[in-house]
Amino acid sequence: MELKVKNLEIAAGDALVAMLNYEDAHHLTIFQGDRILIRAGKNNAVAVVDITHSNSLVPRGTIGLFEELTQNLNTKSGKKVFISIAEKPKSIDYIKKKMHGEKLNEKEMFSIISDIVNMRLTEIEITYFVAACYMNELSSREIVDLTEAMINTGETLALNKYPIMDKHCIGGVAGNRTTMIIVPIVAEAGLIMPKTSSRAITSPAGTADTVEFLANVSFSMKGMKRIIEKNNSCFVWGGGINLAPSDDKLIHVERPMSLDPVGQLLASILAKKKSVSATHLLVDIPLGKGAKVESKDKALMLKKMFERISRLLKIKTKVIITDGSHPIGRGVGPALEARDVLYILTNNPKGSYELREKSLEMAGILLEMGGKAKSGCGKIIAEEILTSGRAYKRFSNIIRSQGGKVCDPDSIRMAKHHCNIISNLRGRVSHIDNKIISKIARMAGAPFDKRAGIYLHKNLGEEVHRGSLLYTIYSESKQKLMYARKIADEEKAFEIK
Amino acid sequence: MELKVKNLEIAAGDALVAMLNYEDAHHLTIFQGDRILIRAGKNNAVAVVDITHSNSLVPRGTIGLFEELTQNLNTKSGKKVFISIAEKPKSIDYIKKKMHGEKLNEKEMFSIISDIVNMRLTEIEITYFVAACYMNELSSREIVDLTEAMINTGETLALNKYPIMDKHCIGGVAGNRTTMIIVPIVAEAGLIMPKTSSRAITSPAGTADTVEFLANVSFSMKGMKRIIEKNNSCFVWGGGINLAPSDDKLIHVERPMSLDPVGQLLASILAKKKSVSATHLLVDIPLGKGAKVESKDKALMLKKMFERISRLLKIKTKVIITDGSHPIGRGVGPALEARDVLYILTNNPKGSYELREKSLEMAGILLEMGGKAKSGCGKIIAEEILTSGRAYKRFSNIIRSQGGKVCDPDSIRMAKHHCNIISNLRGRVSHIDNKIISKIARMAGAPFDKRAGIYLHKNLGEEVHRGSLLYTIYSESKQKLMYARKIADEEKAFEIK
Repeated sequence: MELKVKNLEIAAGDALVAMLNYEDAHHLTIFQGDRILIRAGKNNAVAVVDITHSNSLVPRGTIGLFEELTQNLNTKSGKKVFISIAEKPKSIDYIKKKMHGEKLNEKEMFSIISDIVNMRLTEIEITYFVAACYMNELSSREIVDLTEAMINTGETLALNKYPIMDKHCIGGVAGNRTTMIIVPIVAEAGLIMPKTSSRAITSPAGTADTVEFLANVSFSMKGMKRIIEKNNSCFVWGGGINLAPSDDKLIHVERPMSLDPVGQLLASILAKKKSVSATHLLVDIPLGKGAKVESKDKALMLKKMFERISRLLKIKTKVIITDGSHPIGRGVGPALEARDVLYILTNNPKGSYELREKSLEMAGILLEMGGKAKSGCGKIIAEEILTSGRAYKRFSNIIRSQGGKVCDPDSIRMAKHHCNIISNLRGRVSHIDNKIISKIARMAGAPFDKRAGIYLHKNLGEEVHRGSLLYTIYSESKQKLMYARKIADEEKAFEIK
Repeated sequence: MELKVKNLEIAAGDALVAMLNYEDAHHLTIFQGDRILIRAGKNNAVAVVDITHSNSLVPRGTIGLFEELTQNLNTKSGKKVFISIAEKPKSIDYIKKKMHGEKLNEKEMFSIISDIVNMRLTEIEITYFVAACYMNELSSREIVDLTEAMINTGETLALNKYPIMDKHCIGGVAGNRTTMIIVPIVAEAGLIMPKTSSRAITSPAGTADTVEFLANVSFSMKGMKRIIEKNNSCFVWGGGINLAPSDDKLIHVERPMSLDPVGQLLASILAKKKSVSATHLLVDIPLGKGAKVESKDKALMLKKMFERISRLLKIKTKVIITDGSHPIGRGVGPALEARDVLYILTNNPKGSYELREKSLEMAGILLEMGGKAKSGCGKIIAEEILTSGRAYKRFSNIIRSQGGKVCDPDSIRMAKHHCNIISNLRGRVSHIDNKIISKIARMAGAPFDKRAGIYLHKNLGEEVHRGSLLYTIYSESKQKLMYARKIADEEKAFEIK
C-alpha cells in the first residue's frame, strides 16, 4: 500500500515507530505492535505500528513517522512510501520462551539485546523480557550470556595490556569519593586503570560530576585511549561513550516498578568493566543503614554472585563489604568532594582521615591484585606513593590531559549562600543518615550547581555540645537554601546520644 | 515547583501523562514513571511523568500536558500549575505481589483494574500485570475477582427479570452467523436476551457488522434497554456501550506477544455477559483445523474452565463443542451473511441447511435452559417458531426498533465486481479452510465494504467436477479483487479429494 509521509518530529525513544490511521490499519488487518516494511526509494526499514484514531494527526492515506524513522529512511513530509506487512523479530519468541520458564541460550540472549539496542523492540516487549527475567531468575550461564551480549552490542576499548585494573562501588554513601585517590596511586605504581564513572542519578555527586569540577570528562573512546596511553589511567564519564547501551533501555522499564533484578545488575556492571578490557576488579559493597545495601544477607549474596559471574567471565574479582552506615569524608557535592580529594592528595591535614584510610586500603588491594605489592604490603606501598606526592603529580597529569588544572584546595570557592546547622543536644554523633544528607545536598543544588552541597564539621563518633556546628549547607540560591534548610529541620540527619 | 503549561494536543492513550524537561526533572530528582500532583487553580490531578531531552518540545520551566490531562485540569497553554511529588498508586505494589507469585485478593484485583480504567497506570505497568498473570496463572478465585472488577469498573444493564439468556461463540468460523437466527427464536418464546455483539477484528464480518447491513447497532445503555423492553431482545454493538472497559487496555498489551491467557479470556467474556445481567449462557466452542481452537484438549480445557468460573459467578452455563473445521453457511461478509440469515428466517430453500440446523440446535438448548421447553424438545419448538414465520416477524420488529428494515434477500445487491473460482480437479470437497476464506474476503474489502465477500457454491462433502464453480469473490474495487484473487490462487481454500 502506498502512503504519504508525515514527519511527526517527535522521537519515539524505544523503537522505530510508524503511525497509521485507524481505518488504514483496520483495512490492512494491521494491529498495534505489528511490524511493517517501509520502502522509501532505495531505503527501507522495518517499523513497529502505532495506530491513531486522530484524523488530524495522521489522516487516511498518510503514515506518521517518528524522528528516528524519518532519518533512517532519509525521507520527509509529502514523500511517498510503500508499506507491506513484515514478520515480528525472532527475539519476541525468545522472550516468550523465557516467560514460559525455559532457559535462553547465548544466541537467543544476543538476539534480544541486539534488537533492544537497534530499536527493533517496543517498550511493552522489553517489559515482558524484564518481567520474565525477574520472575524466572536468570541462571549464572544466562547472566554471563547477557553480559557478553551487552558488551558486544556496544563500544569496547582494546588495550592489549595485562593486567588491566578496575574498581566499582555499589554506592549510596555520601562523600565516598575514593576513586579519585585510588586511580592515581594505582596508575603511578605502573598499572593500567581505564576508569569510567557515572554521574549522580539520585545522589548529590558522582565521580564524573566531581572530576568535572576540575576537568572535562566527556571523551570519545579514542580520546579516552589517548589519555590512558599517557597516564596509565583516566577519569572518563561512562555515559559519554557507548558502553553496553542496552543497559539504559532495561533500566527505563525497571524503574516504574522499582525492580532491581540481581542478574541484570551484575550483567550491567560487569559488561561495562569488560568493555574496557578489565582483567582485575575490586568491588566495594558499602553496607549499613541508609546505604544502598542495608542487610548483611544481601551484601553476602551480592558478593557471592559477583565472584561467581566474574569467574565465568574470566575477570579476577575481589569483593569487600565496607561500613556504609554514614558519609565518608567531609564534603558532599562536586566542589566540596573535589576539595576533600585534593586535601588528601596534597597530604593536607584538613583531609578526611576515614576517606584517606579507605582509599589506601582499596588501592593496596589493587596493587596486590596487579602484582605490584606482595600480599599484605599493598597498603604500605599505596601510602608511600600518596605521601611522597607522586599520586598528586599523577593526578595533576591526568587532569591536565583532560583539559583541566588542579588548584589549591583552600582557594576553592563554595556556593554564594550558606547556613549552619547547630546541635541542640550534647553527646556523641551516633549516626549520620546518608539518604537525608544526600537529599539536603541535592535540594541545595548539587550536582547541577557544582559548588553547592554540604560540609560535615562533625563525623561519626565525635563529641558535640549544645551549639556545636554540625554541618554547613551551601547553595547558589536563597530559595533552594531555604528548602534544603527545611528538610534539615524536619528530617534529622544526625543522631546524637 | 511552578511551571507553565504547554498543551501537547496529543492523547497519551494509556495513562494521564505530563512531560517534564530533563533538567527540571533531574533537579527535582523525578524519574520517568514517577507520579506528580499537579494543581491548576481549584483542579488537581495525579499524573505520570514522562521526561524529554527536547528543549523545543518542553522547554525548562514548562510542563507538557497530554490531551486527557489538559481536559482533567481544565487548563490551557500559558497557564501556571504547581507540581509536587506524589506517591505511586498502591496497585503497583499489588502487581509486584503477583509477580512474586502471591495470590491477589478481591480488593487488590479491583484496585489494579480500577487504576487501569481510570488511566492511573502506564502501559509498562499494565504489561507487568499481564506478564504476572500469564506466568503465575490466575486461580479460579482470582479469575472471579478479575471478572467482578471488570464488571464494576464499567457500565451495567439492570433488567430485574429472570431468566436472562445469552450466548457466546469463541469464533474463527467463517459465515457462522447463528446469533441472528437464535435471538428472535428465543425472544419469540418469551425469554429475555439482551444480546451484545462485537465487530470483526480479524474476520470478514462480526455479528455487529452483519446486523449493521440492515439496521443501526450503536446504542447507549438506555437505548438498548428500550429495544429490549419492546422486543425481549436486541442486536447491539458491545463496543458502543462501556462494558468492562479494562478489557481493551489489557488486550492492547497482550497483542504484541500474541498472549492469550485463559484466565483473562474467561474474565473478559463472562464480565460482558454479567454486565448485561445474563443468568443463563450457552457457549459455542468451534473445534477444527483453521478455527480458533484447533486441539481437542484445548477445547475440553476451555469447557471445564467456563463451567467452573460460571458456577462461581452464578451464571448457569452450558458449553458445546461444535464442528469448526469449515465455514458454516454460504455467505462470508456482512451483506452475504445477512442474506443467508434472511433466507433461513423466511424459510427460503436457498438458506444453508447447516447454518439452519446449528442455529436450531442452539436455540433449542437455550429454550430448554430458560424453561420454555422440556429436555429434548427444545429444537422442535425452535423449529416450530422458525417455520411458522414468527421468528422472522420478531426479527423484523427488532430491526425496525433499531431504525432498519428487512428486505427480500434476493433483492440484496452484492459488490460491483466479482470473479469466480473454478475447480480444476474432480472429487469431493474434503476441507475448506476458514483462515484462507476469511483472508480472501477481507482482502476483497469485507467488513468495511459491506457488500464485499465470498459466496460458497460448494460446501464440505459436496461433489465437484473439473470446471465446477467453487466460490465467487465480490469486491467494490478491481484492485482489491485482483489482490483477493491472487491469494485465492496462491493459497488453496478448498481441498478436493
